[in-house]
Amino acid sequence: MRHVSHANKGQNVTELATTGTDLPRLRELNSLSIVRALRDHPPSTVTELSQRTGLSRPAVDVIAQGLVSDGWATVLEPGASSAVGRPARRYQFRAGAGYVLGVDVGVHKILALLADLDGNIVQTVRQSVTAEAAPAERLAVLDEVVTACVAGAGKTPGDIWAVTAAVTGAVDASGRTSFFTPLPGWKSVNLAAHLGTHFSCPIVVENDCKLAALAEQWKGAARDADDIVYLLAGMRTGAGLIIDGVLRRGFGGAAGEIGALKHVRWLNAPEHLQNCPGVPATVSPDDAAAWVFNAAREGDRAARAAVNRYVKDLAVGAAALVLTLDPQVVVFGGGFSRSADLVLDPLRNELQRLCLRMPDVRASTLGADSVALGALKLSLNEVDVRLFSAGLSAPVAPRRQ
Amino acid sequence: MRHVSHANKGQNVTELATTGTDLPRLRELNSLSIVRALRDHPPSTVTELSQRTGLSRPAVDVIAQGLVSDGWATVLEPGASSAVGRPARRYQFRAGAGYVLGVDVGVHKILALLADLDGNIVQTVRQSVTAEAAPAERLAVLDEVVTACVAGAGKTPGDIWAVTAAVTGAVDASGRTSFFTPLPGWKSVNLAAHLGTHFSCPIVVENDCKLAALAEQWKGAARDADDIVYLLAGMRTGAGLIIDGVLRRGFGGAAGEIGALKHVRWLNAPEHLQNCPGVPATVSPDDAAAWVFNAAREGDRAARAAVNRYVKDLAVGAAALVLTLDPQVVVFGGGFSRSADLVLDPLRNELQRLCLRMPDVRASTLGADSVALGALKLSLNEVDVRLFSAGLSAPVAPRRQ
Repeated sequence: MRHVSHANKGQNVTELATTGTDLPRLRELNSLSIVRALRDHPPSTVTELSQRTGLSRPAVDVIAQGLVSDGWATVLEPGASSAVGRPARRYQFRAGAGYVLGVDVGVHKILALLADLDGNIVQTVRQSVTAEAAPAERLAVLDEVVTACVAGAGKTPGDIWAVTAAVTGAVDASGRTSFFTPLPGWKSVNLAAHLGTHFSCPIVVENDCKLAALAEQWKGAARDADDIVYLLAGMRTGAGLIIDGVLRRGFGGAAGEIGALKHVRWLNAPEHLQNCPGVPATVSPDDAAAWVFNAAREGDRAARAAVNRYVKDLAVGAAALVLTLDPQVVVFGGGFSRSADLVLDPLRNELQRLCLRMPDVRASTLGADSVALGALKLSLNEVDVRLFSAGLSAPVAPRRQ
Repeated sequence: MRHVSHANKGQNVTELATTGTDLPRLRELNSLSIVRALRDHPPSTVTELSQRTGLSRPAVDVIAQGLVSDGWATVLEPGASSAVGRPARRYQFRAGAGYVLGVDVGVHKILALLADLDGNIVQTVRQSVTAEAAPAERLAVLDEVVTACVAGAGKTPGDIWAVTAAVTGAVDASGRTSFFTPLPGWKSVNLAAHLGTHFSCPIVVENDCKLAALAEQWKGAARDADDIVYLLAGMRTGAGLIIDGVLRRGFGGAAGEIGALKHVRWLNAPEHLQNCPGVPATVSPDDAAAWVFNAAREGDRAARAAVNRYVKDLAVGAAALVLTLDPQVVVFGGGFSRSADLVLDPLRNELQRLCLRMPDVRASTLGADSVALGALKLSLNEVDVRLFSAGLSAPVAPRRQ
């Protein structure tokens, strides 16, 4: 259930390589270094791979052919287009060797993304669910969505190498949201065990804010940063923290839960929007915030005042995170990030007033899909960790231990 | 001026070792692995070193003798005491190959510790300074203390391999406390440059709370933990954060500065003690808190109420850190930790009320020396990083680049 970091990856390799006593293992390490060199790059020639890994050309040649027959790589035969000399064949990481799933088990929707090992999304399935749905109902929708996603891509559960499911609330060591969850009856749900009835690969359950932070670092607004505070701003406010490049869960999985401290004002901040005077009775409570943001954008004074009060409260909790962690970037994400145009400047002003060192404040570029995308990324990380620490055999889906 | 982490240490070594093309470099890596195996252990035989490193006994024998002639190791010839067989000679890391300094440039005192490369303290020099002292005066006391510390150990500045100086206030990228410092005129002081007139080795300037946290992890109350929130509690309240085993500075050096946010109540928390009714006029403001703690211990009602109000405010900022980071351990350190008997239980009760997951709350075991001790540890880390990444030659003090 835990986030799998890459921190100690190099260490094991070092110890094994420097002993120099275990040659089959060294050959496997060399295969791994070729896979790694392929994975991070466009199709590459033997010469390029040799330069990149420090292995000799003949060694790379043998290893690359082995990787092709094992299913880790494909060969791109040279076209006739090259004018100079005999063009070399190139090798490419076979991203379709396996697939991963990222699922957002949200309050209002279930969203599943299926991607190959390069993270290319090949299937997306989304279905609404009501906030009040009991666990059995939510799990039934989850089953439908996941089944449709895998089948829709023409795959079977056995093709899936890792599954990550995002939930609202901090995830404890048992994979449950026992500290807090807004979903009725959800505290005791063992989501990993439930998904385990579909898949035999590793399954991770993780907090939605943490995964959204990972997504912003991967493909979003904070790709250039290693120290990131991500704010999931909507009818609830949460945070995900990336420190020195790594998503941090805390000792018990409850990092980022600053919102639980009433002194920093996140608990009631969205109420400024929900209770804004002038919201028509025909607008549902779930849609009130969007109405207020729109009205504020059109100059409505009460709506503007409500947005300002909201941002002032949001900024207190954000300042607590910034003063604690001194991040490079604060990403304003979640549902309200659609209204970043109204929030970012006043948020910056408040943070400037409250903080010692001002971070870069940016709007999320991923919107509502960030949570599922982060889940996908954690699945890819899980595959990487197994691939580059457990060793290399022919590509098959790993099984949980 | 930055904290030097060990994060990428293994990585470089891996790349060099797996290429297998650079044999002299590999021999040096093997020497390094023997030094490392010696450094972390009691005196060891060739057999033990061979088992520990995976290198062959003949290779270890040659390398160990080279390390002795280079000055990295000493030989312990076997005594006659062993009854079975011929006792083997043992090798020991030569901790006296170099020395490091840790200096606490405090508000009220300058404290310098000198230690060998194993961290054994061989000299301690302490001198008071007034809180109002101008930078020139404080630096003059620092010079005296440092000079006395080095000379008192029978060493010269050239014997010192690393110097770390602790200051109050977050340390920016230039090594200055430009964000904030309670010391008059200190914001623009370039302490590293000043110390550079004495020493040619690397010099690091770091925040006192961060270094105290490092000390508690090294030799104090949190030796068993990787996720630590350290509270420096005194007339000012600060924090140092260790996450996944590594001291975190933040992107710009200002991590842990939650106290600057008035909402979490640290700014005025000590005033409950200072302004407690009943403190005799003869007690100086600096000593008022100690008086109140003593009176509370003896049952004085006003003093007890003041301590409780102090702890309630302390707990709000502490809860902000705990909810953000979800640490394993909170260490209550700093000057007030002498009164941990009065603080720990009510602090636990407040945190229990405010937090999602309760950390272990402990009193500092290092007291007033924790800051200087942490500075010493950072100097040792600096030596390690250079030793185990820059490569191994005969032991001499490194020079700043």
